[in-house]
Amino acid sequence: MSIEKVNQFVQSDLEIVERRLLERAANLYEFVDQAAQHVIKGGGKRLRPILTLLSARAAGCSGGAMYDLAAAMELIHIASLVHDDVIDESPLRRGQETLNAKFGNKVAVLVGDYMHARVLAVLVACKAGEEVFEAVAEATQSMCEGEVIHAYQAREFELKLDEYLQVIELKTARLMSCSCRIGALLGTAGAKAVEALAAYGHAVGMAFQIVDDVLDMIGEESAFGKPTRNDLREGKMTLPAMYFRDNCSPEERARLRELMLADERSPEEAEWIVQRAEAKGASKYALKVAADYTEQANECLKALPESGAKEALIHLARGLAVRDR
Amino acid sequence: MSIEKVNQFVQSDLEIVERRLLERAANLYEFVDQAAQHVIKGGGKRLRPILTLLSARAAGCSGGAMYDLAAAMELIHIASLVHDDVIDESPLRRGQETLNAKFGNKVAVLVGDYMHARVLAVLVACKAGEEVFEAVAEATQSMCEGEVIHAYQAREFELKLDEYLQVIELKTARLMSCSCRIGALLGTAGAKAVEALAAYGHAVGMAFQIVDDVLDMIGEESAFGKPTRNDLREGKMTLPAMYFRDNCSPEERARLRELMLADERSPEEAEWIVQRAEAKGASKYALKVAADYTEQANECLKALPESGAKEALIHLARGLAVRDR
Repeated sequence: MSIEKVNQFVQSDLEIVERRLLERAANLYEFVDQAAQHVIKGGGKRLRPILTLLSARAAGCSGGAMYDLAAAMELIHIASLVHDDVIDESPLRRGQETLNAKFGNKVAVLVGDYMHARVLAVLVACKAGEEVFEAVAEATQSMCEGEVIHAYQAREFELKLDEYLQVIELKTARLMSCSCRIGALLGTAGAKAVEALAAYGHAVGMAFQIVDDVLDMIGEESAFGKPTRNDLREGKMTLPAMYFRDNCSPEERARLRELMLADERSPEEAEWIVQRAEAKGASKYALKVAADYTEQANECLKALPESGAKEALIHLARGLAVRDR
Repeated sequence: MSIEKVNQFVQSDLEIVERRLLERAANLYEFVDQAAQHVIKGGGKRLRPILTLLSARAAGCSGGAMYDLAAAMELIHIASLVHDDVIDESPLRRGQETLNAKFGNKVAVLVGDYMHARVLAVLVACKAGEEVFEAVAEATQSMCEGEVIHAYQAREFELKLDEYLQVIELKTARLMSCSCRIGALLGTAGAKAVEALAAYGHAVGMAFQIVDDVLDMIGEESAFGKPTRNDLREGKMTLPAMYFRDNCSPEERARLRELMLADERSPEEAEWIVQRAEAKGASKYALKVAADYTEQANECLKALPESGAKEALIHLARGLAVRDR
């Protein structure tokens, strides 16, 4: 089962989520509505709702609140992207004008806040239990913490592996873990299955973010769908750059240090870093770390009974680790 | 009982809330913690927690979750101010550097989001019931809607009274109503008392925002603690300006229209508007509308048994209607 097959497997569920997303973010006030619909229609991988849907099904649930919970997870993700775009002053996302570019920062900040408010309303409306609220509170808090720390570690040339892993855990893995957990909580498979799926989501999230960081360094802008080399541009150390730093000659290290700590790096300087890092096997190393997380993720699924959804989760994890966008 | 006496009445409760606020917003990560504490220590009237505390006590509750719920209401308010300051690029609030000025927009947007995440965590931790979550979801959503609509009605010279009232309801009154409602829900006084206190909070919120709009036009910057004439500077119609618009000569109206629709207004032009509006009794009219809401608020309290807290709520409403800051 390839990642395309995973998508086929979830397609009909995902269509329902897509409609729910638009419905749940709809607003009486035309302008709020227009802004929210613009950003939802911008699309995306819908990875978090897929995790919720597949986890729910893998845990024996077959409907009900899973569509709304999946939509809520995507709203959290979209709200964070909307605020990211304000922070980074990004004009485009997935080839479309960002909210800040189209309507200004004011609307973008407020519509991000509005989506968070809608998440709460959706959770209330589908009578989500205490465990769901707790998981969502923890995941959204972690996301903010991760982003703040990430912003402040930006210029930390000596960033350690555990510090890097902590940031990607906070920034990405916990929301993916939460997406799986709240899906699994709807099922009948019990607490062990819930923890197994949450652990799966966590490991998938770690792998996903590492691959994202590799694609940011060596991916093709046309395939990735957004500008690449952002991290290098901002002087941020990620796993492949850290590997290069720790596996190069003293001269290369000194040059890398100088380049990363400079106010900015020219495209030629970024190119030098990428070429030298690749010559040392930086992205190969990082993708191996991601692959280990992927295997760890799929290990977690052994606790679950066989099902189409479980199989889809296994292939989803593998597919995400070898994607090019 | 003057507003000072109200403050004396709630002082010891409010000290507990103040500590809770700092504790509940505390963070393991030094930088997140520092930013959150900075903005909380900036102070404020703590009006929303006061409403929660007094409503809880007026409904027969005497402790427990009321401190955390009060702190959560203030966190929602503070988060909205943090995002407002980003949107308006404000350097100062209450004489202190804003988060965006001190740490940049990135941190300010994220710390606002972090506070919203903490609100959810606090509500979960104090085992708030469904009605509390529902009220908070509705109030936070309304706040965002109100801010977006407010931003877009900015240049609406012909703004109608009901449109103005709708915006201040969304922007301000619903969170105050929610603050009262969730306090009242902790009490033993029953559903009628809850609705009475929620209606009180709504009317107090309407009065509060109208007075705020009057103070923005005619208040003393030194007493008000923030720059005045913001609404005029931004070309926003508020109740006193609308009264002037509807009660002046055709020549004055034409000049007002021209001034309000211009890209900006000089201090002399703003002064002309204020002087002419005052000559027509604009702020007197607006304060009368506010006073009517205040009386309406206190009317609602008749449904409640006598208590010190009820008396404090009555004086709080009256005090807010005649404040100069």
